[in-house]
This record gives sequence, structure tokens and C-alpha cells, in this order.
Amino acid sequence: MAPTLDFWFEFASTYSYPAAMRIAPLAAANGVDVRWRPFLLGPIFKAQGWDNSPFNLYPAKGRYMWRDLARICDALSLPFVQPAVFPQNSLIAARVALVGLAQDWGEDFCRAVYTCEFGEGRNIGEPENIAAALKALGRDANAVMQQAQADTIKNALRAQTEEAQRLGIFGAPSFVTADGELFWGNDRFEAALEWARKEVKR
Amino acid sequence: MAPTLDFWFEFASTYSYPAAMRIAPLAAANGVDVRWRPFLLGPIFKAQGWDNSPFNLYPAKGRYMWRDLARICDALSLPFVQPAVFPQNSLIAARVALVGLAQDWGEDFCRAVYTCEFGEGRNIGEPENIAAALKALGRDANAVMQQAQADTIKNALRAQTEEAQRLGIFGAPSFVTADGELFWGNDRFEAALEWARKEVKR
Repeated sequence: MAPTLDFWFEFASTYSYPAAMRIAPLAAANGVDVRWRPFLLGPIFKAQGWDNSPFNLYPAKGRYMWRDLARICDALSLPFVQPAVFPQNSLIAARVALVGLAQDWGEDFCRAVYTCEFGEGRNIGEPENIAAALKALGRDANAVMQQAQADTIKNALRAQTEEAQRLGIFGAPSFVTADGELFWGNDRFEAALEWARKEVKR
Repeated sequence: MAPTLDFWFEFASTYSYPAAMRIAPLAAANGVDVRWRPFLLGPIFKAQGWDNSPFNLYPAKGRYMWRDLARICDALSLPFVQPAVFPQNSLIAARVALVGLAQDWGEDFCRAVYTCEFGEGRNIGEPENIAAALKALGRDANAVMQQAQADTIKNALRAQTEEAQRLGIFGAPSFVTADGELFWGNDRFEAALEWARKEVKR
């Protein structure tokens, strides 16, 4: 059986962008099956007393993060444009992703959303940008956007966010192995992959 | 001229431990000269509204950090014992380090302090532990401890902490290249080394 790894991401999260763009080929090359798990950081941040991104609450940290992200994207040859709006409302994107991940276009949609937001600096909180991403993937945007507002999807996203919190997740991206080992940050992806592979051999 | 890199560290900082233990051989192998720059995070955290370590203020983040640090130490074959006291008072250690770094035993002293704190789980805020580290290095502990209380040293540490803040440093360890590029975290050391080397070629 192939080792598995859960990839927990939030569309508003900056460092989730390089993680989302590089995870599939690296996981495949290592024979690890990745499960994409969108969730919302908002409720988790609120529980910590934050009503905004820590990168806005702590400006020195924020300035550094944007510079660091630009360097990381440069090293990965990923386009990068700092969006005017940050953090962005990721609710619709996360719900649509859940619809897509239950079908076969979810991962492509996630990459398209991140490219829109951090590769082009546009606002994924605007439904027309989500609709455009869906159309580019050949989906019926209206139908999918309606499906994404179903109670089953709303509840699934809520449950997934609660599960993230139970797992000890406090930031994104995070990676969790089948035996519950938690890794936080795009820079911990390699260590998570290695853990997942060793776990299967144990 | 060899490329240079400033290594900004705080003795109370957990991730500064693996950084301090691995920096010298890696920098030497890459032909980079490292300047060790102890500073205090307390005033910087206070300016952000924190009166404690963020790892204590945000328990999920703290639990993760200790686990992550244990994994990192394991991968580097570094001893690791979680100290009962965290964060520790690093004032005396930082002042003594400034005395030693102006002579030729500073880096060894810094490594000894980190080993005491995170390799053995003891309290570096207790002067007798600092004295023991000095004695183990063949220094006159009483004389050095007295030198470390001189106004010149106190002012030098204050000035260094203010310089860190001016450079945009908000956490430890941090690495700053000669052209002012800032890298934060033990996991960014390799990127900082690479930047320092490329800078010289520019």
C-alpha cells in the first residue's frame, strides 16, 4: 500500500501557494498519495484571539513574509504578484474545492485559485474570479457554484475545519501523516514526505 | 573577499539551538564568514504586545514547536531535553557571549550554553550554570562574569538588540547578508548561505 499524506491548506494562506503548486509531482516521485484537505484558518485564528492575519497584526513579520514568499516563488519559477487585498475571503473557493475534490477536477481548481490570487494578484473572494477558474477548466460554473452552496458542502467544510483544529493544526499549509504526525509550513513538506514513507516501512 | 553572513541569535530561542550547533561547519564548507550576533528578543516581543514567548501564548503552536524541535535534533543527531523552564532568562548568557566573542572563545561558549539549555534541559538563567560552562572552557569564571556586568557590555547588548530591530528582525535565529537580505529561521540557513555566496559574485 502506498504511503499517504494529508495536505491541509487554506486559500487565503500565502505559503500554501508554493506548497499547492509543488506537492503533486514531488509526492508522485516519492510514491506518496496525497489527500487535499481545504479548511478555514479564520475560526482557528479567532480561537487564538486574532481577528486578522498575523502577517497584518505583526508588520515586521508581514514585511518579511512577502519578501520570503517572493524569493521562494523565484526559486520555484512560480509567478508571484502580491495581491492588494490580504487576507482574502476564501469561503467560496474552499466550498467549490470540496465539490471538485469529490470529482476529478479539484486539484486543478485549487492550483488555478492559487495562481489567480498569488500568481496574478487578483481577488479570489470575488465570485466571478472563481467562476472564471471553473470555466477555464471546462466546468459549468453556474451549476458548480450552486452545488457549492448546498448544506452538505457547507457542513463538510465546517467539519473539516473542526478536524484540523482537533489535529492540532494552527497554520497552513500543514501536512499530517497516517499516524498523526504534524508538519507545519511549505518548508516542512520534504520532512513530511520522508516521515510518510518511513511510516509504511515500520 | 569571502562572503559574510550575520547570525542573529537569542539564547532563549529554541530554533537557535540547532542553528548554533550546525552553522560553523556548513559556513566553512561554503566559504562564508559568519559573525555571531547575540541579541534579546524580549524588547522586540514587547513592542509586538507579547509579554511571553509566542510558544507559550499560543499552546497549539508551542506543542508543535517542541515536537518539531525534537525531530530536527534527531535528524542532526543533537541531544535534546525539553527544559522545565521556558523561556529562560538569557541576559547573563548574552552578556558573557559578547565578552567571549570579542576574544576567541565566544562561539564555543555559545554552543555550550545551548547544549546546557536544550541538550541537557538545564536553566541558563542560573549564574552557576554559566560559570560552569566558562570553567569547562578553561576560563576564569569569576573574572569573566564580572567583565560581563561592565557598562560597555550592557550597552553593547542593548545597541545590538536595537540594531536587530532596525534590520527588521522579529524572531530568532535570523541571518542577514552584507546587502541586508533577511532570512528567518533555522530552516532558512541554507538559503541565506546561498544568497551570501551569490552576492559576492554580483
